[in-house]
Amino acid sequence: MGETDWTKKLEEETGIRFRTTRPEEIERESFLMIQEELGESFLASYPETQLPVLLRVIHTTADFYYGESLVFANGAMEAACRAIRRGLPIITDTTMAASGINKAAAGKFGCQVHCFIGDEDVKEEAKHRSMTRAAVSVEKAARLYPDCIYAVGNGPTALLRLYELIREHKIRPALIIGTPVGFVNVVEAKELILQTEVPAIVARGRKGGSNVAAAICNALFRTAG
Amino acid sequence: MGETDWTKKLEEETGIRFRTTRPEEIERESFLMIQEELGESFLASYPETQLPVLLRVIHTTADFYYGESLVFANGAMEAACRAIRRGLPIITDTTMAASGINKAAAGKFGCQVHCFIGDEDVKEEAKHRSMTRAAVSVEKAARLYPDCIYAVGNGPTALLRLYELIREHKIRPALIIGTPVGFVNVVEAKELILQTEVPAIVARGRKGGSNVAAAICNALFRTAG
Repeated sequence: MGETDWTKKLEEETGIRFRTTRPEEIERESFLMIQEELGESFLASYPETQLPVLLRVIHTTADFYYGESLVFANGAMEAACRAIRRGLPIITDTTMAASGINKAAAGKFGCQVHCFIGDEDVKEEAKHRSMTRAAVSVEKAARLYPDCIYAVGNGPTALLRLYELIREHKIRPALIIGTPVGFVNVVEAKELILQTEVPAIVARGRKGGSNVAAAICNALFRTAG
Repeated sequence: MGETDWTKKLEEETGIRFRTTRPEEIERESFLMIQEELGESFLASYPETQLPVLLRVIHTTADFYYGESLVFANGAMEAACRAIRRGLPIITDTTMAASGINKAAAGKFGCQVHCFIGDEDVKEEAKHRSMTRAAVSVEKAARLYPDCIYAVGNGPTALLRLYELIREHKIRPALIIGTPVGFVNVVEAKELILQTEVPAIVARGRKGGSNVAAAICNALFRTAG
């Protein structure tokens, strides 16, 4: 621990004592702080295999709410590890989620990351059918990668369309990461996914985000590694 | 309002009545819900020019905490509009933040979006000097784009280095968006930025994120437009 050369001067000037500004220590320190705040009894009661995912989500959001809202359904952790080790493609609903996924970690398993939201054919079809691009993207994924990990961090309509296509046996993701955020249909869409038999990691309620979806993927790479 | 063709069937099957799944209505409905929950007295007391930024941040996070934590310092809104209309480059600390910025909106003003975190020279120098890449990126920005908008959604050390370079007159951002998230040095770094005379939009406390930084940029494009 302790300051590096460049922050020593800053500490002297400001009177602030930084916990650490060393790259290799910041993350470790953060995780220690998170575990300290969660407390021993929470940590002891939380399923051990799921804990690294929760810790990384809290690290990404500084929001302890996820301690209550994160749900692991239908053997999600085991399914996630299998899917990653098989090198299944990861489909995200936003470029932000795709951008937040650690490509080096994904690459080790041969997992490619795809996002169709900006594709011209998706845009055109969405406009034509008065659908969201997120929902049309799911249809494209069902055609190209029916066997995949689907990570939804933004658009609840992606989860709604996923739900329908799963029921119609047109897509069968090995894992759904369902963390869309917002106000319209978000809570409902997440609950519908939890009614399927597909392994899923879902942040119940309104909160979530592309950053949360990416953080979950990145935590899963560590577990699978 | 009302369901589209593809969700009518889903509504019948599930018994859920979706508020709307029409792309053009989802955002409007979301903002109505946010304003309703904030309440009339809050809305009336919140500075009118800053409100669209707050609403978009809450829309992005579903977190009303930002109603208290978002701070606009040193004429931030006026400075932001001027900077955007001048087409100043926007430097982000993460590719996720860069990815979340609406490029079409930025392009209308001629604002380019840059992120140096993945650059080889930044990586090497950070390793050599035992600094974070976020901090080294600020030095690179100071050399290439001293007159810029700097949006920090993740790394507090970027704000610490910005603070130092501002004091050394080596960079003078027209606006700092300071919304890093986390546990180590995050609160302190944000407070230091608020001690400068640089116009700044800062999410005080631990919370924030690359998504928040991008959302603020996107809200500012609308205000400047």
